[in-house]
Parts: sequence; C-alpha cells; structure tokens
Amino acid sequence: MHFKLTLSYDGSAYHGWQVQPDRATIQGTLSAAIHHLTGETVLPQGSGRTDAGVHALAQVTTFSLATNIPAENLLRALNRALPPSIRVLSAEHVPTTLHARYSALRKTYEYRIFTGRICPPFLAPYAWDCPWPLTLEPMQIAATHLLGSHNFTSFAASDPDLSTRTTPTTNNLEPTTLNTRTLFTSQITLENNLIHYRVTGSGFLHHMVRNIVGTLVEIGRGALPADSIPSILAARNRSAAGPTAPPQGLFLVSVDYPELHLYETQNCSPTQNS
Amino acid sequence: MHFKLTLSYDGSAYHGWQVQPDRATIQGTLSAAIHHLTGETVLPQGSGRTDAGVHALAQVTTFSLATNIPAENLLRALNRALPPSIRVLSAEHVPTTLHARYSALRKTYEYRIFTGRICPPFLAPYAWDCPWPLTLEPMQIAATHLLGSHNFTSFAASDPDLSTRTTPTTNNLEPTTLNTRTLFTSQITLENNLIHYRVTGSGFLHHMVRNIVGTLVEIGRGALPADSIPSILAARNRSAAGPTAPPQGLFLVSVDYPELHLYETQNCSPTQNS
Repeated sequence: MHFKLTLSYDGSAYHGWQVQPDRATIQGTLSAAIHHLTGETVLPQGSGRTDAGVHALAQVTTFSLATNIPAENLLRALNRALPPSIRVLSAEHVPTTLHARYSALRKTYEYRIFTGRICPPFLAPYAWDCPWPLTLEPMQIAATHLLGSHNFTSFAASDPDLSTRTTPTTNNLEPTTLNTRTLFTSQITLENNLIHYRVTGSGFLHHMVRNIVGTLVEIGRGALPADSIPSILAARNRSAAGPTAPPQGLFLVSVDYPELHLYETQNCSPTQNS
Repeated sequence: MHFKLTLSYDGSAYHGWQVQPDRATIQGTLSAAIHHLTGETVLPQGSGRTDAGVHALAQVTTFSLATNIPAENLLRALNRALPPSIRVLSAEHVPTTLHARYSALRKTYEYRIFTGRICPPFLAPYAWDCPWPLTLEPMQIAATHLLGSHNFTSFAASDPDLSTRTTPTTNNLEPTTLNTRTLFTSQITLENNLIHYRVTGSGFLHHMVRNIVGTLVEIGRGALPADSIPSILAARNRSAAGPTAPPQGLFLVSVDYPELHLYETQNCSPTQNS
C-alpha cells in the first residue's frame, strides 16, 4: 500500500529532514516510528529536504508498506509513536506513481523576520531576530523582480552537495538550465513586528529561499539598492547575492500535487515519462 | 544601585527558576550574564520560583549592583549576553526596599490546554495536549468556586519542599492559615482549540495552579462533578483534588507591586514592617 502523509514539524531540535547516522532527523524519526508500528523498514521520501532548524507547516512524504493498514489508523498510531514536535496532519492511500518529490508541482515557503526591539522568547525559535532597521518598500519592490522564470544560480548554495539537492532533470541540460526555476508568488508583508516573505515556486535550489531573504534584508537595510535583483540574477554567481538568512525563520508551508484522479486515469506522474 | 527587571522566558530548556549546580536555570543564567557584564556575583531574587518547563511572559526580579550603570544600558547589555530564550523586557532603578518576592501584591498566571484533534508542533511546548474531550461549562462554574479567600492545602504540592515555597509569614500562625490565599480572578475561556485558565491571586502555593488545572480538567471530562470544589477545599488534603497538570501549559503572566512613589514616601515595603 502506497501512502501520502502530510507532516508538520518544529525543526528546532532536528538536524534537518534527511536521515543521518547518530543524529535526530525528521526522516529518521518518522522511519523509526513506522518500523516500531509495522516492523517494516522504509525510508519515507519527502517533497524536498529541509535543513537543520527549518520548520514545516505541511511537508509531504510518500512511502509504501506491505502492512495492510487503513490510512486513518496509521495517522493515529504514528501520532502516538512520534514526539510532539512532529505531527501527521493527514494520511491517505495514493497511487504508487505519486512520489512526494518528483510529482510535486509547486512549493510554498514562508520566512519570518522579527523587526521589533525585543524578540519574545516564544518567537525566537521561529523567526530571524534581525539586528537592523528595515525599510519595507524597497524589499517589496525587489521581491517582485524575482517573479517568473530565472536562472537562480546566484541564490543557490555553493556547496558540493548542490547537484543532489536540485530537482533532477535529464542529464543533457546545461547547468544554467538546471538552475532555472519559476516563482509564481514572491511577496513581502508586515504584520505587527513580523515581516513575512512568502514565495511559491516550481522548485527551489538548496538554500535558495534563505539566500533570497538574506539579499532582501540587505536591500531593506540599505546595503543594496531596490533594483539590484536583475543584475544579481544575471551574474549567476553566489557571491553577487546577500548572505544566507538563518534557518529558524523558514517554514515549508505547502506542496501542491496534480489531482489524484489524473494519476489513476492518465498515469501522468513525471516518473512514468522518463 | 537596586534594579527591578521584568523578564520573559521560554522555560522549555531550563530546570526552573532557582539556581542549581550543573543545571541550566533562569536565575543561574541571569546571574552568570550579570557577572559576565559587571564582574559582580549576585543572586537575582524572583517574584517566585517557576518549575522546570514553566514559562514567563513577565517574571520580576530584583537585585543590587555596586556597578553604576543606567538601567537602559543594563537591559541592552543583558539582552546581548543572554540566550534568546530569556529576554529582559524592562529595567528600572527602584528603592532598595522593593523586593521581587516580599513586595509582590498579586500574581497572574495563565494555563493553556489544547483540546483539538492534533496539537500543532509549535504549540506543544506551550500547552497541555489534553487527551480527553472537555465540557467547558462545568469547568467555568468550578473555577468561580475558587474565588475569594480559602485554605488551599488541597491544591498545594505535598512535597517536603513545601514550607520553603510558601510566602513566609510570622511563625506563630497555624499551618492552615499559612496556606490561605485570595483569588481575585479565576476564569476559563475558550479560543479556537485552546482553553485558557487565567488566575490572579495574592500568592500561590507550590504547584497550586497546576493542581487547580488538573482538578478542573477532571471536572471538564466528567470524572468529578462541577460542584466538587467546596468539598475539595474543605478536605485540606492533597489527595482530595485532581492530578498535577504538566508544566509546559503554565505561564507567569504578570506580578503587581505597590506604586513606586509609595516606597519612597512611606516605606511601605512589607520587609520594613517585620
């Protein structure tokens, strides 16, 4: 039986999504809970990795079990077995062709920046307590310059792990094309003392949201002009953009998939076509 | 110079307020930060101890320093030295007769109970994820039966540490009088999936709020009748009341003191009169 679970987690105490030896991770903790319940060893696939300290309001994971268990029972049993920092919000049986990562159409992230004088202790694990006064309007203008399809190499982590973090495509594409993503939403809003940056895209390179936020903050504090995004994108060089914003402000908000009936009638999963 | 600080802290990672050898506590962490800044060794007095895992929106602490430092500078320097889980919200110079504990007139606590189906991971460290369905009205009725002056022995921790946790009075009072407190507010409200119990009193015995909440939950789930509070109070026996609610739902909300001008003109501090 193939399952799709929607998870919410507080990433504060975890070394990110991906399983690691001798370290608490979301994937590893979920895998252990599934093993505890069913005796089966599976590695649940996520819609993407989240880094250490990054949170999820609705991460999606898929995996197959030999055990015949109603989805609702799996949800209840996992929520008893998992720590309170990880919750299964929903569980459903889905066609085996639905893959949490390869089938994802769009992902939405939100980043929260605290701009008040004293950051409440209860907010500190869930926002960047930004040390500079920020002017909103240039950040809002700059955010719109990221909309549409661009090569986001300047905003991608320059780490050696980069290639495995990007959404895989066919191998004969140029690296420049590999790093092209489309942003459908890229919006800065202010609520009380919190700046929210919300971004929806076809996919995201490793550290891309945090590097965008780090750059928008440079713009908001006046260290970069509001119109600097086009030239940063054109540079295709990590050093052209701002620093990486800290992880605790980042939330994976949602992941969109094709309607399930499309899977059943048309086998439209991308993995079927490659 | 005598200082009064108002602190907010996330108690999740601390072994309560009171300094303990080799354990992270709020008092110990604050004392270390003050030492780091001034070289002086002081033990800041709190309005009361909070237990491990209990939070504060506004705990009050007083201490004296030989160092001549404006209160606003001390606030800024401490917030740089302290971890983000402890914030100094305000700092002021006060008369030496103001003592965080002995001068307190009233304290307000709030306890949060999550009653929905799946407790969000971001709420889990700040609420009791209560496993039973609760009926609000009997809890609201029972809460009003606690208002006024009562002997709260039935709601006091039956630990050997009890005597040191109660507000000291003169020694010739009966133990029953020692455990008399006055509640000015005792109110249950529901907002979304959270039940809030807010209580303001002249003082609180050790575990008193958590034992009240544990009893109100017994009433809300139907294990005790709504009118059971008077007989529980009359029993003056810990075993008459319900279990102790877990610490993470409890917040010290505020502590009230006499107006400062009363200290300066009338020396009204209780420590002056004993």
